[in-house]
Amino acid sequence: MNVVNAAIITIGDELLIGQTIDTNSAVIAQELNKIGIWVTTRIAIGDVKQDILNALEEQSKKTKIIIITGGLGPTADDITKPALCEYFNSTLIIDEAARQNVINIFTKLNRPLTERNLKQAELPGSCKPLLNLRGTAPGMWFEKEGVVYISLPGVPHEMAGLMESSVIPGLQKHFTLPVIIHKTAVTIGVGESVIADILIDFENKLPPHIKLAYLPSYGLVKLRLTGKGNDKNELETKMNKLHLRLSSSVKEWLMADEDITVQDVLGKLLDKYKKFVGSAESCTGGYIAHLLTSRSGSSSSFKGSIVSYANEIKEKGLGVKHATLVKYGAVSEETIIEMVEGAIDLLNVDYVVATSGIMGPEGGTKEKPVGTVWIAVGNRETVRATKHFVRFDRKRNIEITAQTSLNMLRKFIIEMEEK
Amino acid sequence: MNVVNAAIITIGDELLIGQTIDTNSAVIAQELNKIGIWVTTRIAIGDVKQDILNALEEQSKKTKIIIITGGLGPTADDITKPALCEYFNSTLIIDEAARQNVINIFTKLNRPLTERNLKQAELPGSCKPLLNLRGTAPGMWFEKEGVVYISLPGVPHEMAGLMESSVIPGLQKHFTLPVIIHKTAVTIGVGESVIADILIDFENKLPPHIKLAYLPSYGLVKLRLTGKGNDKNELETKMNKLHLRLSSSVKEWLMADEDITVQDVLGKLLDKYKKFVGSAESCTGGYIAHLLTSRSGSSSSFKGSIVSYANEIKEKGLGVKHATLVKYGAVSEETIIEMVEGAIDLLNVDYVVATSGIMGPEGGTKEKPVGTVWIAVGNRETVRATKHFVRFDRKRNIEITAQTSLNMLRKFIIEMEEK
Repeated sequence: MNVVNAAIITIGDELLIGQTIDTNSAVIAQELNKIGIWVTTRIAIGDVKQDILNALEEQSKKTKIIIITGGLGPTADDITKPALCEYFNSTLIIDEAARQNVINIFTKLNRPLTERNLKQAELPGSCKPLLNLRGTAPGMWFEKEGVVYISLPGVPHEMAGLMESSVIPGLQKHFTLPVIIHKTAVTIGVGESVIADILIDFENKLPPHIKLAYLPSYGLVKLRLTGKGNDKNELETKMNKLHLRLSSSVKEWLMADEDITVQDVLGKLLDKYKKFVGSAESCTGGYIAHLLTSRSGSSSSFKGSIVSYANEIKEKGLGVKHATLVKYGAVSEETIIEMVEGAIDLLNVDYVVATSGIMGPEGGTKEKPVGTVWIAVGNRETVRATKHFVRFDRKRNIEITAQTSLNMLRKFIIEMEEK
Repeated sequence: MNVVNAAIITIGDELLIGQTIDTNSAVIAQELNKIGIWVTTRIAIGDVKQDILNALEEQSKKTKIIIITGGLGPTADDITKPALCEYFNSTLIIDEAARQNVINIFTKLNRPLTERNLKQAELPGSCKPLLNLRGTAPGMWFEKEGVVYISLPGVPHEMAGLMESSVIPGLQKHFTLPVIIHKTAVTIGVGESVIADILIDFENKLPPHIKLAYLPSYGLVKLRLTGKGNDKNELETKMNKLHLRLSSSVKEWLMADEDITVQDVLGKLLDKYKKFVGSAESCTGGYIAHLLTSRSGSSSSFKGSIVSYANEIKEKGLGVKHATLVKYGAVSEETIIEMVEGAIDLLNVDYVVATSGIMGPEGGTKEKPVGTVWIAVGNRETVRATKHFVRFDRKRNIEITAQTSLNMLRKFIIEMEEK
């Protein structure tokens, strides 16, 4: 099998002090993977010229493709271009297409153009420039002793645009690439170890060119099969068979047989049954609504949400009875049920999911400690409420509560629509 | 100055195919930085034993501290422990404290304990185990030829717990560390180049042990000063002076003189003036409410939000007139003003921020293309509406709209409260 490996080098002190989370590497890796290029290493280094030179030197011994992002800005801490000039024995010259691009962008934005902005069009003479339509810093393509070096800006959407328009087509043309196929099954509500015990035989019998990985997150476990080969049809057939066997082995907990979020599964269900949904959120503070609307076209199944953070809004906005709040408190079965009932009426939807809890770090009491959460799902006939505990930091507690809520809603809808 | 460098090695195929975004490295780097340890490299490699061995070997030549995360799970694709045994010439033995910890966790969760779970307590004999109270995989501390190697689980909150309880105190005891101080100023509504031109002199006059970095994101530019030294008080004094000069040089666009989000600045403002806020969201779908409630203690200033995704909810929930929607449409100045007015009444708050727009990729028309957004902020006397364009993908459009909205609200509150 023809194996083409790549390394990703991300540049910037902000990555090393942890001020920025590196999402670029994940996007680049995903895109390379789709065309059969395997990323063997990702390295983050600071804005230090010698470190950049060393990383290029080291990686060029191990891989055929090196992708660099970051350090192309117009300020003094951006030193990728001087480093590339030194590495490729080159000097900076103005690229006319890049200069015109900078001028066009500033004209369009109606902003004053400075000398510093025009410096973006200066590129090492030995590179092939890659036009960046989303920003002023062009990409660069270099070749040296059989290795392809590609330098991209660190701004995520500029990098993504260049990957699509120039890098992927360029690499496909330059290399003969193998086929890589991923198949994923997503389980929910079960631990990694239980699944691993069930899959022992399956895993042991996998051929050497196919691997199984376990990716746990937020109560989900993603099971990912990765196969490499030369013949696309042959590999596809084999992978489909294994994927089917994998999915049926864990069908008790299977949420989806593709790499998909709970909100996307829900959106598809709602579209299928032509139903509308809404949320009544206290402790999740709008995060469930955000997840539901993160999907393009969500207006076909989502009408709205009442984020009733204060008790006053639970009463005025959702019609929760004052007496209920006084007697049982906001975090209670009684309140959460009235929240669902009120939201179904106000939002005029078929299904509602509601949350009320204490996400921390403050706000807990002895009876209702931080982490106590009531979640309810319902339609006009039935409301089902359950109590949960979440035990992490505020951010994660909100995320887990939202995921759990959406999964409860998913199961409830299946039960109601398929009965 | 005493310089202690560290390298972070993250392990897992999911990092190389881009299925998981590496947040662990950022957290580890932040924590190390606070105690004066500088991360010079971050490397991500796959679940391949030889790659792990090579990375350990290479990094041990360059740094005194190597922190490894991931690959400690109980399944067959987790191969960090075998790799560590080989590297340290060691064999796996059961650690009694770790075994008891696994048993305690399963007893508490009331889940069946399998042999596979107990395997988590097997550790290389040459390590000092680090007790993990948040999960079953212990951390490990090794020393070899003057280099400290620390292996941590990849689950983010387990890793974070171990950093705090064992790693940071251990490193502080083991090394004599220099002082590192960061100071940040955050600007909004101005480009990196304009600021860089203003700061040319400031930057050129910085002493060699203090660096300035520009970190642009979502219309913000963070300016970060980083200083290293041996004497904490001396460095602090110097940094404070420079930070003050930096902040006043850009005061026209200064949002905050610390590394803080718009929602945190807003929360502080609202607490200061004892005012309440709410949101009326169409296109942002609850994301503004989520940002406002991501702050612990937000109930002191946030009452709730009406996510009026469907026009029907704009009418029923916010009292937008049917005639207004018919005549001007949902994405219009007239509608957004009525949304603010309705939300102030219903939510009974001092200030409201509202959004209505087309986030894409679908839903645009010739008159109102994808990216058209109306944002309004107001109180009981004044409502101010402005039209914007956003030009990225759906996710980013929602994020930028929310950030812009919160900044408009911040400026409006300052204007109203300080007039």
